Amino acid sequence: MLVNGQTSDSIPANDRGLAYGDGLFETIRIAAGRLLFAEAHLERLSHGAAVLGIPCDHAAIRGWMETALAQAPAEGVLKLVLTRGPGGRGYRPPEAAQPTCVISCHPLPELPATLLERGGQAFLCRQRLAHQGVLAGIKHLNRLEQVLASQEFATHHEAFEGLMLDQENRVVEGTRSNLFMVLDGRWQTPALTRCGIRGILRQHLLEHFGGRLEEADIPLARLHEAEELFVANSVFGVVPLTRLELDGKVLECAIGPFTQAAMARFREVLGA
Amino acid sequence: MLVNGQTSDSIPANDRGLAYGDGLFETIRIAAGRLLFAEAHLERLSHGAAVLGIPCDHAAIRGWMETALAQAPAEGVLKLVLTRGPGGRGYRPPEAAQPTCVISCHPLPELPATLLERGGQAFLCRQRLAHQGVLAGIKHLNRLEQVLASQEFATHHEAFEGLMLDQENRVVEGTRSNLFMVLDGRWQTPALTRCGIRGILRQHLLEHFGGRLEEADIPLARLHEAEELFVANSVFGVVPLTRLELDGKVLECAIGPFTQAAMARFREVLGA
Repeated sequence: MLVNGQTSDSIPANDRGLAYGDGLFETIRIAAGRLLFAEAHLERLSHGAAVLGIPCDHAAIRGWMETALAQAPAEGVLKLVLTRGPGGRGYRPPEAAQPTCVISCHPLPELPATLLERGGQAFLCRQRLAHQGVLAGIKHLNRLEQVLASQEFATHHEAFEGLMLDQENRVVEGTRSNLFMVLDGRWQTPALTRCGIRGILRQHLLEHFGGRLEEADIPLARLHEAEELFVANSVFGVVPLTRLELDGKVLECAIGPFTQAAMARFREVLGA
Repeated sequence: MLVNGQTSDSIPANDRGLAYGDGLFETIRIAAGRLLFAEAHLERLSHGAAVLGIPCDHAAIRGWMETALAQAPAEGVLKLVLTRGPGGRGYRPPEAAQPTCVISCHPLPELPATLLERGGQAFLCRQRLAHQGVLAGIKHLNRLEQVLASQEFATHHEAFEGLMLDQENRVVEGTRSNLFMVLDGRWQTPALTRCGIRGILRQHLLEHFGGRLEEADIPLARLHEAEELFVANSVFGVVPLTRLELDGKVLECAIGPFTQAAMARFREVLGA
């Protein structure tokens, strides 16, 4: 693990990342020894840092990422945490923050062998996402909603993902992924203006598919009518959802043209 | 600083408190060498830990607090952070968490000499509090809303506190304190069912004043009609607000009977 470029496995106990979740993170796929979408991750980090008012030294961070990558497995995950750094007691940030950047590398999580062929199962989380426009989209360290939602897997052992609603019954995202679907033949992904994280792969798919894929507010009731469903994130790529538990009912979806196109695109990006 | 009872100034960089704000904290006043409201703080910690599903070893924590107190100044602040401890990558908590408990002691922040006689100034923060019933009341580590609100002091140099609204224009609390007021002769404090932190001094005042002090939803419009205003937290006690900037107008309040009674009660508790 690297902490501000130095090999270390600890951070100061008075770091504001610990005290208040005052920071950001990125989780980057390592494929064939290179970082996937590295620039897009750095851009999102930079945008989040601007929202929070945390200095973000691109050049230094880029260098530390390269150092970490040189020691990482050829297939894996690089996680980067950027906090406002050490601080005294009290919410108000110090005048001149000395950010902390922690970089760690991890093995690639294994997916069940038949997941991409057959699709995964999903359930609807009881835990909701609060509306907080200022923080919507950015990948900050205040993640208790996702932690609580993830505990619901304990009663959904077979599920690959849990889907989360906002406070007004719109479906927003998965606990660790973005959601995509086909509704009345239209390719859609939930708009993330009130809550949710703007995933890097989501952003890439929006750009790749251009006008064919649209962002929309999607009420829970519409989810019952989905013709295709899949989730995506930078690490596991595109995973079809073929079985969704919804209020005691089961919705079954096909792996249709939109899902197949997104899976194909991720394979291209991987260089596979 | 004590980390799980051992003298240390660092925590493992893979702690979930850092990764996700997956933990809780307490800020306890040290007065004449003893911890004020120690049991109430431990109860709130315990309740928060139950909500998040974090093991909370009361006996051990109590012991570490005593150890820290023995080396602390006679007047000061003891801060306790309890996290779910180290974890791998991913939101889902480990089956058997090994919590991290960080205890640090700090000098008592000094208040301006005339603050209690003349009262302080306050402003209305632009930053809102999101509605998240599950997390409302508990003192968890997801505090970006307070961090962002605190940055607004930069343009309100003279203010002692910033007041925060929820998403539906109700006034909820200060950035680091609870709010109390007199409306139509009634002693009130905002209900904290959707957001906000249940302060220990707030809880004490509710118990102390019994039916005379009520919790209520308080629309911003009502704030203009406040006859008295004060804020309270465990560290600085009760501070009257006598001047409030509200939408370009200035509301001036007296230090009336409710505020005086609350200040007197805090002095009693301090043993002063």
